[in-house]
Amino acid sequence: MTPKTAESSKTTLTDLVLPSETNPLNNLFGGELLARMDRAASISARRHSRRIVVTASVNHVAFNRAVPLGSVVTVEAKVSRAFKSSMEIFIDVWIEDRESGERTKANEAIYTFVAVDETGRPVKVPELVPETDLEKERYAAALRRKQLSLVLAGKMEPQDATELKALFE
Amino acid sequence: MTPKTAESSKTTLTDLVLPSETNPLNNLFGGELLARMDRAASISARRHSRRIVVTASVNHVAFNRAVPLGSVVTVEAKVSRAFKSSMEIFIDVWIEDRESGERTKANEAIYTFVAVDETGRPVKVPELVPETDLEKERYAAALRRKQLSLVLAGKMEPQDATELKALFE
Amino acid sequence: MTPKTAESSKTTLTDLVLPSETNPLNNLFGGELLARMDRAASISARRHSRRIVVTASVNHVAFNRAVPLGSVVTVEAKVSRAFKSSMEIFIDVWIEDRESGERTKANEAIYTFVAVDETGRPVKVPELVPETDLEKERYAAALRRKQLSLVLAGKMEPQDATELKALFE
Amino acid sequence: MTPKTAESSKTTLTDLVLPSETNPLNNLFGGELLARMDRAASISARRHSRRIVVTASVNHVAFNRAVPLGSVVTVEAKVSRAFKSSMEIFIDVWIEDRESGERTKANEAIYTFVAVDETGRPVKVPELVPETDLEKERYAAALRRKQLSLVLAGKMEPQDATELKALFE
Amino acid sequence: MTPKTAESSKTTLTDLVLPSETNPLNNLFGGELLARMDRAASISARRHSRRIVVTASVNHVAFNRAVPLGSVVTVEAKVSRAFKSSMEIFIDVWIEDRESGERTKANEAIYTFVAVDETGRPVKVPELVPETDLEKERYAAALRRKQLSLVLAGKMEPQDATELKALFE
Amino acid sequence: MTPKTAESSKTTLTDLVLPSETNPLNNLFGGELLARMDRAASISARRHSRRIVVTASVNHVAFNRAVPLGSVVTVEAKVSRAFKSSMEIFIDVWIEDRESGERTKANEAIYTFVAVDETGRPVKVPELVPETDLEKERYAAALRRKQLSLVLAGKMEPQDATELKALFE
Repeated sequence: MTPKTAESSKTTLTDLVLPSETNPLNNLFGGELLARMDRAASISARRHSRRIVVTASVNHVAFNRAVPLGSVVTVEAKVSRAFKSSMEIFIDVWIEDRESGERTKANEAIYTFVAVDETGRPVKVPELVPETDLEKERYAAALRRKQLSLVLAGKMEPQDATELKALFE
Repeated sequence: MTPKTAESSKTTLTDLVLPSETNPLNNLFGGELLARMDRAASISARRHSRRIVVTASVNHVAFNRAVPLGSVVTVEAKVSRAFKSSMEIFIDVWIEDRESGERTKANEAIYTFVAVDETGRPVKVPELVPETDLEKERYAAALRRKQLSLVLAGKMEPQDATELKALFE
Repeated sequence: MTPKTAESSKTTLTDLVLPSETNPLNNLFGGELLARMDRAASISARRHSRRIVVTASVNHVAFNRAVPLGSVVTVEAKVSRAFKSSMEIFIDVWIEDRESGERTKANEAIYTFVAVDETGRPVKVPELVPETDLEKERYAAALRRKQLSLVLAGKMEPQDATELKALFE
Repeated sequence: MTPKTAESSKTTLTDLVLPSETNPLNNLFGGELLARMDRAASISARRHSRRIVVTASVNHVAFNRAVPLGSVVTVEAKVSRAFKSSMEIFIDVWIEDRESGERTKANEAIYTFVAVDETGRPVKVPELVPETDLEKERYAAALRRKQLSLVLAGKMEPQDATELKALFE
Repeated sequence: MTPKTAESSKTTLTDLVLPSETNPLNNLFGGELLARMDRAASISARRHSRRIVVTASVNHVAFNRAVPLGSVVTVEAKVSRAFKSSMEIFIDVWIEDRESGERTKANEAIYTFVAVDETGRPVKVPELVPETDLEKERYAAALRRKQLSLVLAGKMEPQDATELKALFE
Repeated sequence: MTPKTAESSKTTLTDLVLPSETNPLNNLFGGELLARMDRAASISARRHSRRIVVTASVNHVAFNRAVPLGSVVTVEAKVSRAFKSSMEIFIDVWIEDRESGERTKANEAIYTFVAVDETGRPVKVPELVPETDLEKERYAAALRRKQLSLVLAGKMEPQDATELKALFE
């Protein structure tokens, strides 16, 4: 399988925040943003693998800034690292001020998808080749996150999580 | 007001076709695609004008290719020409084959939006500066379409529609 | 195939404007109205042809009046002319004031649908017989619109568009 | 207040059954049909009273026929009787076979609405004048249903429910 | 078939009232609440019968209290009595004040579901065994309601509706 | 502020998986489940704090089992630990087989919410008192997760994350 660049999986979903998607403070519901990010990330994973893909986990999502009603929200998803049949997807969320046109970073999130065949069984995916500095940094961190996730799930001994252990030494 | 490029209003909305949006042939409903194009076009008009914008008309939409369930659909909208307070938006719709990754043109559409203030009254918008060949061609055609629309609405004498008349001579 | 009247395809969809369907000015989104008109028009085309029907094009839609939140909106669709396998549908949109009960024309639109078999291939449809003055006028104009659409798509020479050419002479 | 005919409150909502609205047998969910009937009935009550209206009760709904995916469903609502500030609405539901064009009665339902002012307090509504035989029959039965509802709610002594009592003698 | 308790079919659906579900007085639409109750009741009927179930009728629903935007609404459904293949479901609706945490009864409703096989034909369901006083009271009343429904539908002579007749003597 | 038990914030949302919520393998979309969990967790946080609450982060979600179309899904949320103005919510997701009635654990997730006043500023929340063994275990782990989150966000030195460090020694 030919390795692929992160850029080739880049997926952009720009859309409005509608009244039906807001909470009592008139900001976008967390749950609605989680669903939009899942759709963008799944398209990104599909572009990398050209397979059916299913959400395996949501690694971490921080909601740093509220997204007000009527905002234009841009969700950008790119594969950050590919493992055997799983892919880590890094998602950046931007909001845009109507009057100044200025874009501000609102959130970021990391999802993991698995590529499967028609019966739901995992299949291999191409390797990812990071190009830019940011892509390389996220590529490296992805391994640490995978180890952390295995340790927390009790599937890896903390002592073997070499990348992770280094953090605490 | 500083004129703006078409590129600066470019809006991309990539999303999946979900089961709730399909007709008895398992293709995306025309009405659902019209609604997605309206949202992308309104964001494009808003980026150009930095104002509240409302749909004024849908000039023409041809549904050349069906969009099957599960497709990844990309709607790309750009302002093609700005008039006093109205903007013509040109929209290209692409679908993507999951296995080959190939993108095919599915549709195109032309919407007109008007920029308004908080009370709903039209306000001026910046001029549009086309850059690429395609942008220039669509910019020129936009005037013909405006004349045609005025003639059909009985607001311009066919004899005065100079751009349009040339077509029939 | 027995020709049919326009009246026999008449379809009425009266419904409320809900908060989830409104823009920042608290009026019905253009895209939502386009979707409702598509549904009503498809039922009208289906009643005329008794076949599966798919949206072929949206010829023109002018949004003359905003439709405020809480309005009662009536979408009325009727076949205006039938061609070989396609049908032009004329749609009138009315809004109703709650207090006075007065109905005002808000929009009109023209959609084209094609009747297809289970595999998606075009099939013949009955002729349309216009009865009222308005139906006859729209029936005549439908031919001009078809020629215009063929000319704009480069599928007919402007010189052969006899109905259309007459407009500019 | 001038009395009004039943015909003047007639509301027709014709729409498709979409995939997102069906149960495991591929028929329209009961809950979805209840919601459509509520919207049509509320418009009918509003046309009669020209007031804000709220659902007071659903008297009885029988689901006699399943409504399959892809059907055209017509919900017709008319005020059957007006009391002080409440109105009984009778709703007939029809489905239409695509191939034969035949309409079959699928359901009927009876809802009660109350007209209120901006603060939610009940206000008077015009009397209803039934015209056709069916309208007269439903007008008469409406009183029996009101008595039954008062008896079941413990707000009327069974002995005083003269219309109802007659049924059992 | 082993009889089952009412408790074993208890189904709780706690959710928020979102802006897209409210009427002009900013309260939950009657139709939306009817749909939520239908979903909870269908799960309850399914838990009792372990079969596919379809809504047969809505016996009575009284909307005693408005449910404001942003409320937490709890819909609790339990089978109140099982007949041959049909089940009566009793539904209680509670709303919760955010500040005091107090729960108030907002509505109650009675739905009837029928258990069917894959072809839609009615199948037998287990008997229901009421345990608490409230369950026993609703169990007894369910028979009266069934007789009433048969009488109103003209499928039982009023003279034979022994339970019901007793009310008027 | 009086401390509260975990039990008093317990929130149950039992609902069906509808066709509009499924992916190409006919299983519930990850994004849709994330949204349901967010709604249940927000109600739980609100019951604990009696304040407006907003999603602060999603700590980890593992999708261990697919949730097929037509399933009954139960989302149960309980506050696992309260900090100054934030609350960690632990969510368990169960699916239920229609025929056997058996419940299987499908997923679990951890969300963090912050209680805010009407202007969006954080406010204090009551302490949480764990009672059962499982509640106590989750209460203890919540502190480790908070430290991990602070370390990953660069807001705490790894050396100070005493609870977390212990894992690697």
